[in-house]
Amino acid sequence: MRGLRRRLPDESIIYFGDPARFPYGTKSADTILRFATEDAGFLLSRGVKMVIVACHSASSSALPELERRLPVPVLGVVEPGARAAVRTTKTNRIAVIGTSATIASGAYEHAIRRLAKKVEIVAKPTPLFVPLAEEGWLDNDVAEVVARRYLAGLADDGVDTLLLGCTHFPLLSRVIGRVLGPAVTLVDSAEETAASAEELLAGEGLLNQGGPVRHRFYLSDLAPNFQTVGERFLGEPMGDVVRASVGDARSTGTDSGARNPKSHARRASRRKR
Amino acid sequence: MRGLRRRLPDESIIYFGDPARFPYGTKSADTILRFATEDAGFLLSRGVKMVIVACHSASSSALPELERRLPVPVLGVVEPGARAAVRTTKTNRIAVIGTSATIASGAYEHAIRRLAKKVEIVAKPTPLFVPLAEEGWLDNDVAEVVARRYLAGLADDGVDTLLLGCTHFPLLSRVIGRVLGPAVTLVDSAEETAASAEELLAGEGLLNQGGPVRHRFYLSDLAPNFQTVGERFLGEPMGDVVRASVGDARSTGTDSGARNPKSHARRASRRKR
Repeated sequence: MRGLRRRLPDESIIYFGDPARFPYGTKSADTILRFATEDAGFLLSRGVKMVIVACHSASSSALPELERRLPVPVLGVVEPGARAAVRTTKTNRIAVIGTSATIASGAYEHAIRRLAKKVEIVAKPTPLFVPLAEEGWLDNDVAEVVARRYLAGLADDGVDTLLLGCTHFPLLSRVIGRVLGPAVTLVDSAEETAASAEELLAGEGLLNQGGPVRHRFYLSDLAPNFQTVGERFLGEPMGDVVRASVGDARSTGTDSGARNPKSHARRASRRKR
Repeated sequence: MRGLRRRLPDESIIYFGDPARFPYGTKSADTILRFATEDAGFLLSRGVKMVIVACHSASSSALPELERRLPVPVLGVVEPGARAAVRTTKTNRIAVIGTSATIASGAYEHAIRRLAKKVEIVAKPTPLFVPLAEEGWLDNDVAEVVARRYLAGLADDGVDTLLLGCTHFPLLSRVIGRVLGPAVTLVDSAEETAASAEELLAGEGLLNQGGPVRHRFYLSDLAPNFQTVGERFLGEPMGDVVRASVGDARSTGTDSGARNPKSHARRASRRKR
């Protein structure tokens, strides 16, 4: 979302996040596909002209099927990330890190090999980076020890490019970069995905022609921590957030009032004590 | 489940786990109550005579409501854990650790104060312990640094009892105990909950009178990691596991065949590569 807003400031973005069922990266491909299909259905019910699957686990497990099922263009983050990594490497050795689901899917290996047959790929699940970023431990002693445990040896292998194959990982890029040293360049898919989105919208004649711009945030759960974490990603305040029901056969609607999760959390804790 | 099987070897246990929506401890009280109600509905459809809410986040957020709604006796883990802690402390200073949801609910403070008005309670969310146990990092350098960060200073506060307020935490008891030192006793609610279950079943005349004993495992997702983690908890092989659909208005049934998540994961990864 941050990359898109920078690249396409004239487009309205409907954001749907699924904290009720988060994280996806620990789940089976079947379940991720089911969730992603429900999520996309919600976005379609809001009248979107394009869907961006801005989650690497969902992109890895569900993209071909979503492309087949949805009546609008669908863009994932795997292909753009792979392109950025292939463009960056000089040693032709790329490492990819991601959730268990992303790495198990093999989607990055496929995407990179389609672009460059001779590249050697080291793919490694680094699941604890997700809760680490959620906890806000972006560059402390715990982050350092976890990064060392997952990444030690990668630079010695001649890897010169590390693809951050999860939305959470760029938050940890300082500690990851320090552990790997200056010979390894970190690559993420945000900018490349935003560029692809622009290209795709322009190609289909779908760019906004002067209509009003308004972003909206829908969430499946108003979890107390979400706004804190979300604003850390976004780099600015999120404004009002609306709870949306998905994964329920009868309803893809939203509840009556817009609520702010921070004030909601405050109310809830006052009520409970 | 481990505690129950030891205490009540003649009872059949129907286990339902929700890896599709796991973890609960990061979610709002509303969402946890909704999920717990759906989960209990599934168990009722299997004909259980009692429901044990063996998750501290769900016990903290949903127990009173479940007791009101369900037609069978319901037992949580908060009350038994509080009892064990109050019995253990000599300094009358108890620390409780749990997920964000459990600690935010204040359920442990309530339960402990109902039993012993004068006890001082330090309640602290330690959310990263959950993915740490899932990753199997039970006693390495990462576990040590995380435990230090969360727990440093507790022993200095005169705390002599630490209540492990999450099913995952007993797996980390070695490193937690080392960080806190010998003056602090760790308490969990498994044995006390099993004792309460026995008492309750005996009191209601519901103990099994010689019928066959058969345990069953139902899961909302056959995630590749589940069986590994589950057997770590259970201390023995789980046998066959069946995928169950919950959270869907139309169905609380199970899919046609029993499948083993390990062989499922193996099949899936073979298909993908």
